[in-house]
Amino acid sequence: MTATSQHQQPTPERFFNAINAYEQTEAIKAAVELEIFTAIAEGNTTSATIAKRCEAAERGVRTLCDFLTIHGFLNKEGAQYVLAPDSGLFLNRHSPAYIGTAIEFLLTPRLRESHALLTEAVRRGGCALGEGTLERENPDWVKFAQAMMPLMHMPAEIMAAELRKGGEAHKVLDIAAGHGIFGISVAKENPAAHIYAADWKNVLEVATKNAQAMGVADRYHLLPGSAFETDFGSGYDLSLITNFLHHFDPPTCTTFMRKVHAALKSGGRAAIVELVPNPDRVTPPTAAAFSMMMLATTPSGDAYTFAELESISKNAGFARVELAPPEIGLDRLITAYR
Amino acid sequence: MTATSQHQQPTPERFFNAINAYEQTEAIKAAVELEIFTAIAEGNTTSATIAKRCEAAERGVRTLCDFLTIHGFLNKEGAQYVLAPDSGLFLNRHSPAYIGTAIEFLLTPRLRESHALLTEAVRRGGCALGEGTLERENPDWVKFAQAMMPLMHMPAEIMAAELRKGGEAHKVLDIAAGHGIFGISVAKENPAAHIYAADWKNVLEVATKNAQAMGVADRYHLLPGSAFETDFGSGYDLSLITNFLHHFDPPTCTTFMRKVHAALKSGGRAAIVELVPNPDRVTPPTAAAFSMMMLATTPSGDAYTFAELESISKNAGFARVELAPPEIGLDRLITAYR
Repeated sequence: MTATSQHQQPTPERFFNAINAYEQTEAIKAAVELEIFTAIAEGNTTSATIAKRCEAAERGVRTLCDFLTIHGFLNKEGAQYVLAPDSGLFLNRHSPAYIGTAIEFLLTPRLRESHALLTEAVRRGGCALGEGTLERENPDWVKFAQAMMPLMHMPAEIMAAELRKGGEAHKVLDIAAGHGIFGISVAKENPAAHIYAADWKNVLEVATKNAQAMGVADRYHLLPGSAFETDFGSGYDLSLITNFLHHFDPPTCTTFMRKVHAALKSGGRAAIVELVPNPDRVTPPTAAAFSMMMLATTPSGDAYTFAELESISKNAGFARVELAPPEIGLDRLITAYR
Repeated sequence: MTATSQHQQPTPERFFNAINAYEQTEAIKAAVELEIFTAIAEGNTTSATIAKRCEAAERGVRTLCDFLTIHGFLNKEGAQYVLAPDSGLFLNRHSPAYIGTAIEFLLTPRLRESHALLTEAVRRGGCALGEGTLERENPDWVKFAQAMMPLMHMPAEIMAAELRKGGEAHKVLDIAAGHGIFGISVAKENPAAHIYAADWKNVLEVATKNAQAMGVADRYHLLPGSAFETDFGSGYDLSLITNFLHHFDPPTCTTFMRKVHAALKSGGRAAIVELVPNPDRVTPPTAAAFSMMMLATTPSGDAYTFAELESISKNAGFARVELAPPEIGLDRLITAYR
């Protein structure tokens, strides 16, 4: 993520930096584990004082903090390190928006191992480790539910507020609920809403705890099992389909959206939350690059453009599909109207 | 290495991208292994034709090529992929400057494993895997010698031309010769020069083959063993110390430079080639970030600033130390005069 230096002569710098990019992964993981950002937020700003707070070697801390500065997580003023604004908000343990726990899911061994076989994944056009993340009752999804809620808290609130503009939803189906925060945010936005959360049984235990902690347990109902097999019931005003469709190929998504369509009442909405690349598939960078994560870790998933999600939804019977203007964190909100 | 998108609201995008940066490592490795750049250079510009040439799935190739575009290795024009200039020069197998072999060294398991223990390395202030890359007769240095010559060929020629300006060298000591290309380039620049190459015995076998292939074998002499223990002899006009000092701490570097000083004749020069960060230690990015590689993989190595290299050299008895203006690839050339 570092800008390549200006060179007159041709340079292998981009190659060298990309080959060594795994150092960024390890460095941010080490910084979170050692609580470097928290230490700086607490007022420790030199490598000596940070090292003392983090019980680490000054030499190691200096090199790590310089590296974090190079990659934009810190600023360096003389010998003092200062948190970049996003680091202060998201990586300081004392911040309510702390998301450091996300590394527990984002760096699960299965994700790393799938990528270590990327050459084979490109050859076959999908994950080189069997079903990848899509295995039944995959315990990594429990880790996902436990680790990713902080990262999704703010996006979920933005989504709930945006959806509220389209009317009150009383019966809400939350598909692949995970941590549950998307459905819970809708429940908090609207005291009349009941949430029906679908996910693997082991994952729903996490969502249930979160619903209890956030005071909506009496309006929280469980639909355990595969989202493709579970009977959702019917008469829903709203269905949340957050970060789910990217795991599957378009025909599977269409089949699934037909099931959602049948569960919605007339005039109901499906709210699809996804990383959505532009039609060129190479911008914006983070959303477009997500296609690689799906290639490496699923048999046939992808990051879908709006046109693709619109086509999937319309083929499933939805009448109208809209892209909401605001970003939901790194995601976008697509609303499909029955 | 991707620019973070412009957001009004705070965003965890930098964190998310850094955590997933290992995908860049795996993607460039896969692209080299599958010969994606070579396929494009041969005129295959769509995912379908590249896939056919590389015996891979079109879906996999499309996602990989989009990812390589996001990270600046390719440009995308409609559905066609075009090589970025550096990719054409360095990553196309048909190019004389092809450096794809470098992944064999840059991604040796020991380097990856050392980084996987980075939290512990920061705690202790050095490699968490014993001596790291510095073990005696470490076979990774044979891999280094075999894999890295292409990456160093152009820098070595620039260095040899630059050193030639300072006078003819007849007796040249090449320390940690590796592939041998730095010494060989001096020998090619000056037909009167004899090169004495110091490195582990197994590594010198690679250098010897390269010296033979490049027609300087009759002026190529071997000094096998540890650079700290081997008797170099004396009367050298020039000593090359390329990408060596960063493995050690300053006192060890000073001791070593004293040994080099003793081997040089009066008026002789030591040519130090290193990644040299600015005094702030966070610019330029590639040189400054190299400090992290040394933290993770050596007990006490570092990327040294010019002031530090000057101090090391002067403490070892050198009279004058100069930083040459041109870049030697990603490195800089520092000349210490006896």
